[in-house]
Amino acid sequence: MTVLTRDITLQSQGDCDIIDITPQVSKIMEEAGIASGSVTLFVVGSTAGLTTIEHEPNLLSDFRNMWERVAPQSMAYEHNRAWGDGNGHSHVRASMLGPSLVVPFANRQLTLGTWQQIVFVDFDNRPRSRTIVLQIMGE
Amino acid sequence: MTVLTRDITLQSQGDCDIIDITPQVSKIMEEAGIASGSVTLFVVGSTAGLTTIEHEPNLLSDFRNMWERVAPQSMAYEHNRAWGDGNGHSHVRASMLGPSLVVPFANRQLTLGTWQQIVFVDFDNRPRSRTIVLQIMGE
Amino acid sequence: MTVLTRDITLQSQGDCDIIDITPQVSKIMEEAGIASGSVTLFVVGSTAGLTTIEHEPNLLSDFRNMWERVAPQSMAYEHNRAWGDGNGHSHVRASMLGPSLVVPFANRQLTLGTWQQIVFVDFDNRPRSRTIVLQIMGE
Repeated sequence: MTVLTRDITLQSQGDCDIIDITPQVSKIMEEAGIASGSVTLFVVGSTAGLTTIEHEPNLLSDFRNMWERVAPQSMAYEHNRAWGDGNGHSHVRASMLGPSLVVPFANRQLTLGTWQQIVFVDFDNRPRSRTIVLQIMGE
Repeated sequence: MTVLTRDITLQSQGDCDIIDITPQVSKIMEEAGIASGSVTLFVVGSTAGLTTIEHEPNLLSDFRNMWERVAPQSMAYEHNRAWGDGNGHSHVRASMLGPSLVVPFANRQLTLGTWQQIVFVDFDNRPRSRTIVLQIMGE
Repeated sequence: MTVLTRDITLQSQGDCDIIDITPQVSKIMEEAGIASGSVTLFVVGSTAGLTTIEHEPNLLSDFRNMWERVAPQSMAYEHNRAWGDGNGHSHVRASMLGPSLVVPFANRQLTLGTWQQIVFVDFDNRPRSRTIVLQIMGE
């Protein structure tokens, strides 16, 4: 049994930027040479999250619209009033979506569906450099 | 330390069908004979998710109503306009709920509460055959 | 590779009480003496959940307001009509947020951001004694 910890770093645009990180995850998995186990992904920071989605532009727009219904950017947030960051909506969305995702793999293949990509969702209101911790555990 | 990867296959009705898969998970765990560790569950596909709930019919109805508020089936989705599948609401709900769930076990018992069942939620708009990957890691 | 299973017990106030459990998690990790791996946290019960958030009071209020939009306490729930518990909103919120969270660690440090705390969210409508299962897997 082996534990490998790696970082994925990326530049995001903010404003609900949804980035397909499946290629980076797959590449690290191939290099790791571990047959079966699970990949744990974790967002460092409190204004972004992880999930899977069919990464096609219309659906990304629908996904953004859902978050705008649940936590509109333009409404009043106490966090904004206190800190002036303007990213209250980013924080509450990120906490609802969650920072962690665990994807099993077997025979060196992630168990994703054909139309299912691993995505990083940056809810913050500005472009940012981001780090996602990736941990592979398996044998 | 051992890694065991199994599949749970099931037939769902779609339209927010909520299926209690605790019996299947428990059965695989008993057969595995691993004392303590965790079970990772992962939905293959982008229109379904996993969570826990008290699996009683009134609450299942309340849960469905919440999703209808957050991502109504009848509203306009760009995904539907582009692809004609009619399941835009299914995709965005699934991405918000998330495809993975990790449940620890100790002394060969899942650490669930008395009124807490592991459920598969199929948000798609039609009956489907489904696969959930189950991975046990422990010793 | 080692598996350690521990409990965190706490007294919560209910009504969307949001408790920072990072100190308890860090303490158990230090005592475990495992260099790298992941911590799986799991809520026992179906009316509470786990996530990360910047634990400052304004944001906690914003987070509570979001849940009140998504699943208002005062609306009619079939669960309440059937069981009279008055906590239908608690159940559906908990199922949407999810009971599990996985946080990687390396060099004996959780990979949290500076403004990112691990929180237990009690959606129930009364004070309760709670148990969170914590499992460390690593080497």
